[in-house]
Amino acid sequence: MYLREHWYVAALSAELETRPLSRQILGEYVALFRNESGQVVAFADQCPHRGYPLSLGKVVGDQLICGYHGFTFDCSGTCVAVPGQDRVPSKADVRSYPVVEQGLWVWIWMGHGAPDMESLPETPWLVDTEHWSAVSGVAKIDAPFHLLVDNLLDLSHETYLHNGSIGTPEVATTPFEVEVDNEPGVVRVFRHMNAVECPPFYSRTTGLSGQVDRWQDIDYTPPGYYLLHARIANVGEPPLPDGTDDHGFHMKIFYGLTPSTETSVYDFWALSRDFCVGESEIDQFLEKMQIAVVQEDVDALNILQRRAASNPEMTEVSVKIDRGGLAARRMLASMEEAALAI
Amino acid sequence: MYLREHWYVAALSAELETRPLSRQILGEYVALFRNESGQVVAFADQCPHRGYPLSLGKVVGDQLICGYHGFTFDCSGTCVAVPGQDRVPSKADVRSYPVVEQGLWVWIWMGHGAPDMESLPETPWLVDTEHWSAVSGVAKIDAPFHLLVDNLLDLSHETYLHNGSIGTPEVATTPFEVEVDNEPGVVRVFRHMNAVECPPFYSRTTGLSGQVDRWQDIDYTPPGYYLLHARIANVGEPPLPDGTDDHGFHMKIFYGLTPSTETSVYDFWALSRDFCVGESEIDQFLEKMQIAVVQEDVDALNILQRRAASNPEMTEVSVKIDRGGLAARRMLASMEEAALAI
Amino acid sequence: MYLREHWYVAALSAELETRPLSRQILGEYVALFRNESGQVVAFADQCPHRGYPLSLGKVVGDQLICGYHGFTFDCSGTCVAVPGQDRVPSKADVRSYPVVEQGLWVWIWMGHGAPDMESLPETPWLVDTEHWSAVSGVAKIDAPFHLLVDNLLDLSHETYLHNGSIGTPEVATTPFEVEVDNEPGVVRVFRHMNAVECPPFYSRTTGLSGQVDRWQDIDYTPPGYYLLHARIANVGEPPLPDGTDDHGFHMKIFYGLTPSTETSVYDFWALSRDFCVGESEIDQFLEKMQIAVVQEDVDALNILQRRAASNPEMTEVSVKIDRGGLAARRMLASMEEAALAI
Repeated sequence: MYLREHWYVAALSAELETRPLSRQILGEYVALFRNESGQVVAFADQCPHRGYPLSLGKVVGDQLICGYHGFTFDCSGTCVAVPGQDRVPSKADVRSYPVVEQGLWVWIWMGHGAPDMESLPETPWLVDTEHWSAVSGVAKIDAPFHLLVDNLLDLSHETYLHNGSIGTPEVATTPFEVEVDNEPGVVRVFRHMNAVECPPFYSRTTGLSGQVDRWQDIDYTPPGYYLLHARIANVGEPPLPDGTDDHGFHMKIFYGLTPSTETSVYDFWALSRDFCVGESEIDQFLEKMQIAVVQEDVDALNILQRRAASNPEMTEVSVKIDRGGLAARRMLASMEEAALAI
Repeated sequence: MYLREHWYVAALSAELETRPLSRQILGEYVALFRNESGQVVAFADQCPHRGYPLSLGKVVGDQLICGYHGFTFDCSGTCVAVPGQDRVPSKADVRSYPVVEQGLWVWIWMGHGAPDMESLPETPWLVDTEHWSAVSGVAKIDAPFHLLVDNLLDLSHETYLHNGSIGTPEVATTPFEVEVDNEPGVVRVFRHMNAVECPPFYSRTTGLSGQVDRWQDIDYTPPGYYLLHARIANVGEPPLPDGTDDHGFHMKIFYGLTPSTETSVYDFWALSRDFCVGESEIDQFLEKMQIAVVQEDVDALNILQRRAASNPEMTEVSVKIDRGGLAARRMLASMEEAALAI
Repeated sequence: MYLREHWYVAALSAELETRPLSRQILGEYVALFRNESGQVVAFADQCPHRGYPLSLGKVVGDQLICGYHGFTFDCSGTCVAVPGQDRVPSKADVRSYPVVEQGLWVWIWMGHGAPDMESLPETPWLVDTEHWSAVSGVAKIDAPFHLLVDNLLDLSHETYLHNGSIGTPEVATTPFEVEVDNEPGVVRVFRHMNAVECPPFYSRTTGLSGQVDRWQDIDYTPPGYYLLHARIANVGEPPLPDGTDDHGFHMKIFYGLTPSTETSVYDFWALSRDFCVGESEIDQFLEKMQIAVVQEDVDALNILQRRAASNPEMTEVSVKIDRGGLAARRMLASMEEAALAI
């Protein structure tokens, strides 16, 4: 089942132009585009006439014209013209989804109720380009949403799957804390690795070398929003008691987990840093590294899903490293129960 | 369900040679070939022995030899030899389908009863090469037959889907007449566009430019035969009262709609004209244009079907432009009802 | 259903190295590899932790480390290390399959009971490199096991499907004997073709030309082991009464028929000869010819299966050439009955 009454990342801001983009989100086909003023619009990707994808239509001004028979819609989804007749039938309107563009990402409200603006994640690090530099991307995974949750909540896999980029032996061996905040629902995982090897991902960008303190603090807000606060610093130089931390290097690692179908998920990501701000070479290095890391996850989850699909009775053995993932599963299960109860 | 007791186009005449062609028609695999005298033969594409496709066999003289174990059939489908023994089992014959080669097209009778020769469409424009020049082709569409019927009966889509070749604004906006002739079953759609833009398809071939009178008169004989009478002429020069029309340019646009499976259809086409007869450059131009037009339909129907398959509850909103298509749907529905009642 | 309590060929010896190979055998995914001492190991290809394929793991010494989260197994399948904790859960062991490496082939025991060493086929011709030279290979066929049994038990198809390499007219026309030995289960087919054309496969390797005596004696031990004793000699020079046969050329043609899934099968093969021993040019010639022959079978069975899948009511007409295949089907059916009765 899908958790509908939530915000999900629908697209990278950079992906959207007047030529529409088709995306399947929570099982529904959505046509995303900008009108000629640059405003982002999201329609059900299906012309009410004969079902042709509106994403194959053409934007003219602030209207979208279907590419098969020319039914024409304004940005609210109201049908404003039909070929061969003057009267426009009232049933010819198309569903329009609430969307919010916020820095590098565009969010969509997939709920049937009114959008809950309170629950829209705030991502200042993707908006404030003066103090933060960010890169972003998206991959599609042919595996269900929950396998991506498992993956992101258990970072011990970095040591094995992402060895050579972000994985070092200590990620798997360092004890971590899990904290569950039910109101509002957040799962937090704190892994503070002190005096450990600095992986290439950070050594090449911070200039630090040898041993460092490396902290990974996850805030996962189910279902679709994951934020990893990464901190790299010289050994033994924690933040000051007042919270200031000028001697640490900070990176915010975002994931937007957006179910596409029951067995596929969009893996939106963004990296924002408070160091080397504005340096495009660093942007390019991090983007290239992260694309490779994400592809390793994509490959792993794709094959995991192919195997699971051919063996529905596959069992699991859980150990300590799974505590974060299990907490997330429990929170998602309660949210599903609550959604069913409505 | 399939309407079996009808003639369908099975192949282009030019496609058939002694090397057999396999085609799935109304869900049945058919092996089509010429024997060494040039006669067209159609067999069930399945050896009675172990089911190997006879289309992978070899024609020797007027016999076909199966490519797996050598069962041998004459042109009526009678098994005449079996390896390793002299006696030929009586159950080893293969079904042979009635076929008729008529100009550029080969028709097949898929019925279980005797072929109804009366109902075989007459296509003199594909046979009389002295007065008419014709080109033909075929595409396979991964969408059900009825989506192709909808497409061909509502030509207003030319304006949007085939813009730049045959589509002009007036195709979508000009009112048209629909006529239903139940005995024999024909749906006719008359669209007479007077003083309208001449699209590239006709301007380059007729030499007319600027405004023209452009008529499109459809005769659709369900299930499988569609003939569009196109007429292009200078503005205000209709046919004479006695029916003669020396000052008009005429093109017959044929479609053979042949269901392959429940979700795929062959889109046979032919264009025959009474101008520039014998000019191969015009043949090539029209063939190239038509292949592009058909590909636009193929692409549109393929995606329409993929979407419909993932959303079985897709609804429709019908408007005036759909009258021809709706009349065809009704006629097909009665034919299906009648077929079921037998 | 699968016949599990049997030995099957799992891999060519040459395929196995420390980098694991994944193979689906009798529906089960199996990871096959050598540890660093060269010993062959076969595991269920699924980490007990989260199901990740162990074939994507890494061999270090005599251990395999899972590529996702680092669960580590010794060669018996016992889990010896888990990341992030000292205690190893007892449920974390992985199933290890008995395997035997014997010359060019590696056999696996897929049964739930203890491996029956008595029933392991003896293949001295793949081991004794002093007197025999052998080549081997494997192809995967997208068709069920029983179609490959039919194919191999009825060699009359050589005349039609493998014309130009091993097929000559006489294979299809020569009468043959079928013998069924129920204890232990073996189906034998004897086809002695005397004074017949020598096909290219043998003429280029034996140096014989013109007419020869060509014998094909099949021993099929269901389900998975097939051995064809081929003998080529000058016309009228049979083996001596005491069984010696120095004037004949002998080739052993092996097939390992290993079901992969209900609708796919591995076609392992090996050719071993007692002539031109050690001549690598002859190895290469035979390997190339056999790969082409096997590909003809693969193509034929693939299409046969696609057709059968789309027509579950396909019927058959059996004739004399099918006696070997029918005997094999009967023996397999009794073995399945017996297996179900346990």
